[in-house]
Amino acid sequence: MAAPLSRRDLDFLLYDWLDVAALTAHERFADHSRDTFDAIMDLAEDISTRLFAPVNKKGDQNEPYVGEDGAVVLIDEIKRGLDEFGKAGFLAGSFDESLGGLQLPATVSRAAMTWFQAANAAMSSYPFLTVGNANLITEYGTPEQVDTWVRPMVEGRFFGTMCLSEPQAGSSLADITTKARPIGDGTYRITGTKMWISAGDHELSENIVHLVLAKAPGGGPGVKGISLFIVPKYLEDGTRNDVALVGLNHKMGNRATTNTLLNFGDGTHRPATESGAVGYLVGEEHRGLSYMFKMMNEARIGVGLLATSLGYAGYLKSVEYAKVRTQGRPVDAKDPASAPVPIIEHADVKRMLLAQKSYVEGALALELYCSTLVDIEQTSTGTERDEAALLLDVLTPIAKSWPSQWCLEANSLAIQVHGGYGYTTEFDVEQHYRDNRLNPIHEGAHGIHGLDLLGRKVVMRDGAGLTLLAGRIGDTVTRAAEAADPATVAYGEELRAAVDRLVQTTVKVWSAGDVALSLANSTVYLEAAGHVVVAWIWLEQLLAVGERSGDFFDGKRAAARYFYRFELPKTGPQFDLLDSLDRTTTDARAEWF
Amino acid sequence: MAAPLSRRDLDFLLYDWLDVAALTAHERFADHSRDTFDAIMDLAEDISTRLFAPVNKKGDQNEPYVGEDGAVVLIDEIKRGLDEFGKAGFLAGSFDESLGGLQLPATVSRAAMTWFQAANAAMSSYPFLTVGNANLITEYGTPEQVDTWVRPMVEGRFFGTMCLSEPQAGSSLADITTKARPIGDGTYRITGTKMWISAGDHELSENIVHLVLAKAPGGGPGVKGISLFIVPKYLEDGTRNDVALVGLNHKMGNRATTNTLLNFGDGTHRPATESGAVGYLVGEEHRGLSYMFKMMNEARIGVGLLATSLGYAGYLKSVEYAKVRTQGRPVDAKDPASAPVPIIEHADVKRMLLAQKSYVEGALALELYCSTLVDIEQTSTGTERDEAALLLDVLTPIAKSWPSQWCLEANSLAIQVHGGYGYTTEFDVEQHYRDNRLNPIHEGAHGIHGLDLLGRKVVMRDGAGLTLLAGRIGDTVTRAAEAADPATVAYGEELRAAVDRLVQTTVKVWSAGDVALSLANSTVYLEAAGHVVVAWIWLEQLLAVGERSGDFFDGKRAAARYFYRFELPKTGPQFDLLDSLDRTTTDARAEWF
Repeated sequence: MAAPLSRRDLDFLLYDWLDVAALTAHERFADHSRDTFDAIMDLAEDISTRLFAPVNKKGDQNEPYVGEDGAVVLIDEIKRGLDEFGKAGFLAGSFDESLGGLQLPATVSRAAMTWFQAANAAMSSYPFLTVGNANLITEYGTPEQVDTWVRPMVEGRFFGTMCLSEPQAGSSLADITTKARPIGDGTYRITGTKMWISAGDHELSENIVHLVLAKAPGGGPGVKGISLFIVPKYLEDGTRNDVALVGLNHKMGNRATTNTLLNFGDGTHRPATESGAVGYLVGEEHRGLSYMFKMMNEARIGVGLLATSLGYAGYLKSVEYAKVRTQGRPVDAKDPASAPVPIIEHADVKRMLLAQKSYVEGALALELYCSTLVDIEQTSTGTERDEAALLLDVLTPIAKSWPSQWCLEANSLAIQVHGGYGYTTEFDVEQHYRDNRLNPIHEGAHGIHGLDLLGRKVVMRDGAGLTLLAGRIGDTVTRAAEAADPATVAYGEELRAAVDRLVQTTVKVWSAGDVALSLANSTVYLEAAGHVVVAWIWLEQLLAVGERSGDFFDGKRAAARYFYRFELPKTGPQFDLLDSLDRTTTDARAEWF
Repeated sequence: MAAPLSRRDLDFLLYDWLDVAALTAHERFADHSRDTFDAIMDLAEDISTRLFAPVNKKGDQNEPYVGEDGAVVLIDEIKRGLDEFGKAGFLAGSFDESLGGLQLPATVSRAAMTWFQAANAAMSSYPFLTVGNANLITEYGTPEQVDTWVRPMVEGRFFGTMCLSEPQAGSSLADITTKARPIGDGTYRITGTKMWISAGDHELSENIVHLVLAKAPGGGPGVKGISLFIVPKYLEDGTRNDVALVGLNHKMGNRATTNTLLNFGDGTHRPATESGAVGYLVGEEHRGLSYMFKMMNEARIGVGLLATSLGYAGYLKSVEYAKVRTQGRPVDAKDPASAPVPIIEHADVKRMLLAQKSYVEGALALELYCSTLVDIEQTSTGTERDEAALLLDVLTPIAKSWPSQWCLEANSLAIQVHGGYGYTTEFDVEQHYRDNRLNPIHEGAHGIHGLDLLGRKVVMRDGAGLTLLAGRIGDTVTRAAEAADPATVAYGEELRAAVDRLVQTTVKVWSAGDVALSLANSTVYLEAAGHVVVAWIWLEQLLAVGERSGDFFDGKRAAARYFYRFELPKTGPQFDLLDSLDRTTTDARAEWF
């Protein structure tokens, strides 16, 4: 079976392009070296290949269910693999050594995680959520909370969740109704129902640490009244907290990740006299959403990587298939008795492979670039630090939504390359496609990121974020103008025109004087901006390729060429539409449908 | 539950636009009237709603399997529904009265069939294949073959299949290896293996009539040596023919349609002395592929309608959901304590509904238009008849591939409108999406239709087909120029520019002097041409709307506006790419991947 990721590409991105090895000059990473990074990647490749990939289909075909004792039943292999994952230290990746962590750069730790996501997306969600949860408590919790909850998570003994959505409030957190009541001893009692909670119940870990958004008395209406609580499945004395599994959602994909409806404080697991599940406040009251955004922003990059890794796995599998499957002849072949050729020789199959390659390698590069911004934030000060944070803020909606859209499309193309076989469960690609369809939905639905980008990120601080992004792209274009390769120079000119257009369109859209009209086509804006950013990332890769020859580098050139010929031009009509302040959507009335 | 189709829209298309009632002036349809057409549609809606839609999910969740006796087991409801379908005469729809048929216009009979496809795509495949099979034998078989095989199919007692693909030859029929050996009594013995045979085995009918492509001695290499045979599961004396079910394919969707690997003549069901399954030649030897194209062309319109009906069903369900699901507030709302609004009020949800509406209503109109060409062919003579045939030939690759691409996208948007709920099996839309993913693969994979359109259809007869299409579009534009509605006039101008571009690009692409280069981007050509054609179909609908007011007509205007604002402009970069005779795909080498 094809490996689900390309180590060659990862090494190129991490070392040739992003120069991650240079991070070891910083005190925080001084104990590391390229050797330790390589060892981590070797281990990730090994464990994911041995224990994650082989059970991906089995996990899909044996959905979790609730056993007679009320406990969730998963196939055994998931616990076995995750135990090994934890023992190998992957949960500890980027945490401080003082917490038992490996203190790796975020870029390396995320790159390692990508192996597990590519091998078994559903299984990787358990540690993925745990790391995000532990990061949040580390940043905003008390030292006691860190000792009690984070350390066992870093050790792989406890797993974590994030509990935001409710049945009546998915994207609209202002409308959550879960309540938190202080009972005077510093703790709270939580009551309410949470929906779509991934990894919300299972027997994979000794405990489950839920991070729950709830409204405590005295907060205003809307999102400002929201506080954040640690609500464990088991209390410190080992007794059950009043968190009850109401049911499991049955899904099209990502089936080995339990997705749950949870009741907090409905009396199932506590005496009726103590109404509510025990919750511990994180940070200050009424500031919960800002803390949660810390976890969500991280999760958004993580979802981008999840989408990317599924796209990447499907891409490599379709390449392998296209090289061995023979069928048909060149369109200009005269002799019908000549031998059929491998389908990779057909132009349209090459188109489907180039498209996938440009999507998945572009997306992987984007996500790793965003991860370096996290590392720069952690290891720098002053302007450098501020700019990294600002750029990451602007890029986050794109880093989440672009791979979720285009690596899903890559999975569709991977099916298409396989023909009828791709539609069967005998091959992996149909599962990747089903698994990946989740990513435009969770961690902020696709359209939410359009509103975030156009309504917030590019206008905040007087547009400083967009100016910074455009400046960085401009720097790349300036370097491209000096390139020996004429194609690189030409792409630079096309990219400069595209980013100028992005800036002009942003101004134009906001000149409407009507926020509803300005935001009417924000999803189109998100998609156009995403293509401009990924075109930038491809140009960056070409500059890292330089004049080197060989199949790997020629492949990078071909994918970049594909992106500039077939993809970037799509932004033209998108910008035209945005510039026209088109009212088609805002004018449409519910009765017309 | 929302109806899976809109009767209002069907009536508009059939009567207001296509004026199907006028067909009753022709002798062939003289026994019919709008009343009989309406009665057929009432019956289709009734049976599909009662017996097809309610078991759609059950059929998906209970995949067919091979029982201990070797027979295929399906849920009982499928036979029950199909028996009722046959008794009501739907298999007899467009067949001559002399064969026991209803002699309906193809347009009406197909429109009726759409109800069943929208209600239960997988279940509708059994009669769908049967009708195509019976049509082919009616046209090319002997009177005895028609009596023996077609009559029981029209009565619903026998079902049919088409057996083209083999494990080593999917899209490439030149490479089939199934053999036919004449044994001197007028019959043949067939040996070989056929793959991907939908409805290839089941217990739903008394017999299964396979139409099998095989090579008889004396044919040349490639497709020219192919002959066509009737190979029934049971022979006329009731004994089993040597057609053996080797296995069922397990698929991502369309699961209630059995999809089979069949062995012909492997000795399973016949004494070893009689090597081969009994086959009866259809028409002449070595002309099988041209006969099969008759069935395939019909099947391609049918697949277009299948994709359309799945898109339509998902669209209507997402409209219903968007009207009742409340969440969030208008982007310019100031008060977070105000009540949440139905999500249909959000611009981005309206965008997703308008996109779906423009895809599914555009596709339905296209398919019904193509069906009227079949009727015109049957009821006219001379130029009118020739032009209908030619236009249908040109439109067929688009009629198959455009809905397969865009109504699948509609299903993805239907999931997105449902948010997390759409990803669960509790709602229908995820199944529609999985079911619809088949359509770009079968009946000619997507890329094959690009080769067919650019490599054959627009160049055959010195480009007469493209000239005819452009002329018809020009006629519509001329009528649009007289419209009272300024938007309609403007769309006409945009459409004229687009169709001019299509013609110029076709010439440009073929000026390359290198067939491989001309065809290198044929899929892009297919997709651009598809958008131009559907823009035309939308303009046609607007002309049929005229100046009438009301929600239905305003909805048509909004969807047309969406298509002209958001969709048609996508063709600009596609034509640019084609005009540049871009070599990105042809230059790419297998080693680079």
